[in-house]
Amino acid sequence: MRPASRDLMRAINQFNVLNTIRTAGSVSRTKLSEITGQSRASVTNITARLIAENLIYEKETRDSAHRGRRRVLLALNADAAYVVGIKLSAFRVSCAVTDMQADIRSSIVMPVRTSERPAGFVADLIEEGVRHCVKDARLKMDQIAGIGIGVPGFVDRKEGFCHWTPLYRKGERPLRDLVEKRLEIPTTLENDANAVTMAHQWFGDGKGVQNFVVITIEDGVGMGAVVNGQLYRGATGVGAEFGHVVVAPGGNLCRCGKRGCLEAYVSDFSILAAARKIYADLRWECPSRGELDLEDVMDAARRGQPELVRLFGRAGRLLGQGVAGLIQILNPSKIILSGQGVRAGDMMFAPMRAVVAEQCNPTLHDATEIVIHKWQDTDWARGAASLVLQALYKTPFEKIRPVI
Amino acid sequence: MRPASRDLMRAINQFNVLNTIRTAGSVSRTKLSEITGQSRASVTNITARLIAENLIYEKETRDSAHRGRRRVLLALNADAAYVVGIKLSAFRVSCAVTDMQADIRSSIVMPVRTSERPAGFVADLIEEGVRHCVKDARLKMDQIAGIGIGVPGFVDRKEGFCHWTPLYRKGERPLRDLVEKRLEIPTTLENDANAVTMAHQWFGDGKGVQNFVVITIEDGVGMGAVVNGQLYRGATGVGAEFGHVVVAPGGNLCRCGKRGCLEAYVSDFSILAAARKIYADLRWECPSRGELDLEDVMDAARRGQPELVRLFGRAGRLLGQGVAGLIQILNPSKIILSGQGVRAGDMMFAPMRAVVAEQCNPTLHDATEIVIHKWQDTDWARGAASLVLQALYKTPFEKIRPVI
Repeated sequence: MRPASRDLMRAINQFNVLNTIRTAGSVSRTKLSEITGQSRASVTNITARLIAENLIYEKETRDSAHRGRRRVLLALNADAAYVVGIKLSAFRVSCAVTDMQADIRSSIVMPVRTSERPAGFVADLIEEGVRHCVKDARLKMDQIAGIGIGVPGFVDRKEGFCHWTPLYRKGERPLRDLVEKRLEIPTTLENDANAVTMAHQWFGDGKGVQNFVVITIEDGVGMGAVVNGQLYRGATGVGAEFGHVVVAPGGNLCRCGKRGCLEAYVSDFSILAAARKIYADLRWECPSRGELDLEDVMDAARRGQPELVRLFGRAGRLLGQGVAGLIQILNPSKIILSGQGVRAGDMMFAPMRAVVAEQCNPTLHDATEIVIHKWQDTDWARGAASLVLQALYKTPFEKIRPVI
Repeated sequence: MRPASRDLMRAINQFNVLNTIRTAGSVSRTKLSEITGQSRASVTNITARLIAENLIYEKETRDSAHRGRRRVLLALNADAAYVVGIKLSAFRVSCAVTDMQADIRSSIVMPVRTSERPAGFVADLIEEGVRHCVKDARLKMDQIAGIGIGVPGFVDRKEGFCHWTPLYRKGERPLRDLVEKRLEIPTTLENDANAVTMAHQWFGDGKGVQNFVVITIEDGVGMGAVVNGQLYRGATGVGAEFGHVVVAPGGNLCRCGKRGCLEAYVSDFSILAAARKIYADLRWECPSRGELDLEDVMDAARRGQPELVRLFGRAGRLLGQGVAGLIQILNPSKIILSGQGVRAGDMMFAPMRAVVAEQCNPTLHDATEIVIHKWQDTDWARGAASLVLQALYKTPFEKIRPVI
């Protein structure tokens, strides 16, 4: 149990001030005092400290509503700190440097297949990626306050390793420690869907939303949930495994060994596997050479290839069944669909929406906004960077390394 | 936003002390200081205040491990306050008086069917029940610190009324206000499954558990969830509607108008409706006279009536499907099954457990304990009383009415 002390009180009030400036963009001291409920004196003290530490700065504007009177607003110094985000995927390692506002300063994607390779190999790749990106952003390594790594699988965040991941062989030392040793920068390891969820909470569609869910559709189907304003980790620290909710009992065999999981119908992997079988029989005209990829499949479906249209339709309906259950159980105000797989668009999401409407209580249905997030390749890495950024906002003076 | 102030700090520390005494049963000041992390001086101050207010008392014991040395322990004064819990059901109104430890001092069940009656009629019944129970417990009305009412349906707790309930007609004034006016005692209205969940969190199987779910099986199927130590209310304030998760798309028509809801297979109401149809055809030997009730159905199933065994088996498997989804999505450390319907026992829960094991990831499955709570008729009313009690623990000095 943590006693409520003056230090804790100060940390909470300071976080509230810094966070309000971040959310507002720029804001006056009077307004800060109004929003945070703190006295003018308290706001003056805290902001003086934040300015001294170079985390925020004063900017003057002319107030057009008051005959051009001078006004002093406080804004975040985006260059107060830089962090690196890494995302491990089945066929690539992505890396991005961001500033304090999660804006990307440089990024790189390394198309490497890491599965079956040892953790040390992955740590070497990460080291290369980080050094390249930092140089590309015209920064020095000692300007990087922290590294966040997002990886699919069951992550033990505290110990910095994966209980299970399809992407590399677990070694004797946790991946986090291997990266920390190579780069001498504090590093955090987290489930990739959780990382993207935090990015949405801090810098995206989830800003200011107390209860929302992010579903990521890619090689697998992931989920992260913010509940009462906090990332939800459940009993095991793993959180949700939405991709393995059984929506078709006795149905398709999933990579996890069960039958009828959502992931066995909706993930890029399963769509592609089913499409390749169909292609082997039907051989529709396909412009790309070599093995069929997901873009080819989506193209052919958009041009109306009936078997493929059915494939996306079934995926959408089963996804709708899962999402409806989610709404009934969690009643979130927002569900954000994200990941490469959202490029299937209405082929998948129109049938999904129809099933959600059919299977939800009208009250709960109307209370939940479903957002299809326009996916960018840097989103995963930005999510991983957010892991570090949100820790910086919470205790900025302890964690930020000196910026030279 | 609420600024962290000295008052808030004091309230948190005081709550932690009182709550630690409640959880421990009896505890020394030294141990209190250890558990709460507060200084000895802070613990001494807070406990002095709690003793002066008669909320706790000192009891002396002899410590056998230290040659019978005198030790002073602090314990909760169960008689520091009394509250009343009310539960509205389809065919009865239950009422119970409890002390500060949620022990029942008196209770009554009034077998009245309230559906289609106006809210004023229900308030009259509640008034009768409260006056009767309080007298029965040899208390006076002004010794009652508060009344909690649990009701199935979509409850707006803040405004004290139901958006929708099957149990009475919404009047011009909220039910809570009608009761408060009649009895002049602060009253709280809450969804009944949420109330039972709070009772488990404060006084039952959920004590000290950060993430757990309560599923109530009775006339309907309800659910309450504690997430990160807090009752989860979702986006609409309603929280979960587990009973209306669709587990059999296109299946049985539910009272809510949708098809294939869990409630349409698992609730007492749906089991009874299906059993009556079977009975009309098969006419097995039934000892009770008059219309078949749930006890008759359970008896006949236990004696092996095959159609009924199949009925409970199907209900159990579909419940298992819902519970498996819940585990995949919420990863709670405990699921507590409660309500009258749990008397079906293994006829329903053995097939449920089989499906849960089949449809869950092993890691998540093993992390979730499924508890079948031995149901008592006073559990609902005790749950409603807990609504008031937990508020008392949080701000005891503001809320407790003088005990004469």
